[in-house]
Amino acid sequence: MYISAVSHYLPEVVVPNSHFEELNGLTSDWIIERTGILERRKASADENTNTMAVEAIKNLQKDYSDLSDVDLIVAASYTAYDNIVTIAHHAQFYLGIPEIPAVMLSSACSSFLNAMELVEGYFAMNKSKKALVLLSEHNTAYNHEENTKFGHLWGDGAVALIVSKEKIHEDDLKVEQIITGGAATAGVAIEAVNLKPFDGGLSMPNGRDVFINACNYMSKMTLRILSDNGLDINDLSYLITHQANLRIARNVVGNLDLPLEKALNNIQYLGNTGCAGSGIVLSENIKNIKEGDNVVVTVFGGGYSYGAMLLKK
Amino acid sequence: MYISAVSHYLPEVVVPNSHFEELNGLTSDWIIERTGILERRKASADENTNTMAVEAIKNLQKDYSDLSDVDLIVAASYTAYDNIVTIAHHAQFYLGIPEIPAVMLSSACSSFLNAMELVEGYFAMNKSKKALVLLSEHNTAYNHEENTKFGHLWGDGAVALIVSKEKIHEDDLKVEQIITGGAATAGVAIEAVNLKPFDGGLSMPNGRDVFINACNYMSKMTLRILSDNGLDINDLSYLITHQANLRIARNVVGNLDLPLEKALNNIQYLGNTGCAGSGIVLSENIKNIKEGDNVVVTVFGGGYSYGAMLLKK
Repeated sequence: MYISAVSHYLPEVVVPNSHFEELNGLTSDWIIERTGILERRKASADENTNTMAVEAIKNLQKDYSDLSDVDLIVAASYTAYDNIVTIAHHAQFYLGIPEIPAVMLSSACSSFLNAMELVEGYFAMNKSKKALVLLSEHNTAYNHEENTKFGHLWGDGAVALIVSKEKIHEDDLKVEQIITGGAATAGVAIEAVNLKPFDGGLSMPNGRDVFINACNYMSKMTLRILSDNGLDINDLSYLITHQANLRIARNVVGNLDLPLEKALNNIQYLGNTGCAGSGIVLSENIKNIKEGDNVVVTVFGGGYSYGAMLLKK
Repeated sequence: MYISAVSHYLPEVVVPNSHFEELNGLTSDWIIERTGILERRKASADENTNTMAVEAIKNLQKDYSDLSDVDLIVAASYTAYDNIVTIAHHAQFYLGIPEIPAVMLSSACSSFLNAMELVEGYFAMNKSKKALVLLSEHNTAYNHEENTKFGHLWGDGAVALIVSKEKIHEDDLKVEQIITGGAATAGVAIEAVNLKPFDGGLSMPNGRDVFINACNYMSKMTLRILSDNGLDINDLSYLITHQANLRIARNVVGNLDLPLEKALNNIQYLGNTGCAGSGIVLSENIKNIKEGDNVVVTVFGGGYSYGAMLLKK
């Protein structure tokens, strides 16, 4: 299977660190030191996960105008605007393609790879040839921005990808392997990060346990997927980790002994955009990936969940 | 693939129609005439989609004690308690099985079949051999019970199924085919039923359009899946439709010219339990399905979504 196109959408409103100094006294230096975040985007009052996903599709259509043969829509989000008219259904309506499978899923911040693996399954069953994958997070709708532990971490954004069973363009990225897993038995997984829509929204009572397990799983899964494909760390051209915290990303890079310039990040100007984060990094850097490059996307989410995907050009 | 076991859980609290006569003036006769519903179950304050799913697993374990070789957990819900520690992750924690894929999805009331199709994909990829499928709905958490159009329709409940790639027991039900689809371009799909967690909860501004499309799609998909398998309506032993409204179920039976006793329902005493409804019907009737029987489960959900699954014993 191949990633044939990827694009993203970011809301216009920028929330700089100075917003929090006024709100709850956290200084920009304090936030940068602990998270690497300088600013993040915030959806406006008339935006939500459905509208942001459609904007990402519109950006995709600038280079890739014909989506009429899309035969599967898979959306991922843990901050959905509508659990019934899901992001996938809203996109189906926007595209006007009748009677194709449409489904939304959540495995928290790791959902990008769960969505890719769901598509891989449809391809394996011969039930689809070309899928639209949508990642859309509206963290600020469920966040408590005044909270000094986690209020400053979150941003909003969306991604749209065309994933095809066969190669469409010469420069499509080949998906060599996808690994996903739940790790609900690790650490204090089921108590460390939560998003309870009618019982408090987003909370993160144990960020330290998330940090430890995120570093551990993303390092381990990167090595595993390289090893599964007969590669070692020197063969890796770029590493895209989940964008939760720059310190986590740097810790993984350190564990792997990877040159810093091979790690691609956007957390500095977008904050944690949930499952969209690593997809946005891929979208931002897609044109820099050269023939022969190996790229690993590795993710970690609350709950816990982990995953790795090896891409080859 | 095979359904090797199925069980369900219902909250203890029963809400009879008389509750609504006191609340908003709707009489029991009025409710029964329009929906067929006499009573429904309501989760207590300390219950939610995660706890109800675990109770369904516990009921499953009474007959099927060893779940240690489950290698995939797929949950379905549009009324989730936690979008990060999903039903699938909570179940993984309960079972204590590390590092297996765990994911929650929603395609509204049709999600039972989307979950089954996701499992079918993992089997096709050889990434799983035995899946735990969980359907859990906590409609009353997002409902507005005082609403005279839809407040009386909803109930809570959960289902647990073991789905295996190979036959485990002699009396396992074979899954012959699964069809799913989104129908967001039909009728007023994206405006007819919604569940917006932070923008009004559950609403149903156009129940009539849901009614028409539910009848149409469930009739059409039942005929299609029978035809795809060389069967006709006379070969059908039991029909399980989505449990949204007894009039919808009866309308489908009329469209298909099916004897009334072949249609299995629980809407009368459970109300609309979302994607769990048809799974609970299957659980309630599993022991009555005999060698040679053909069973169709057909579903319809807001958004819209539809599906059909042919089971053979």
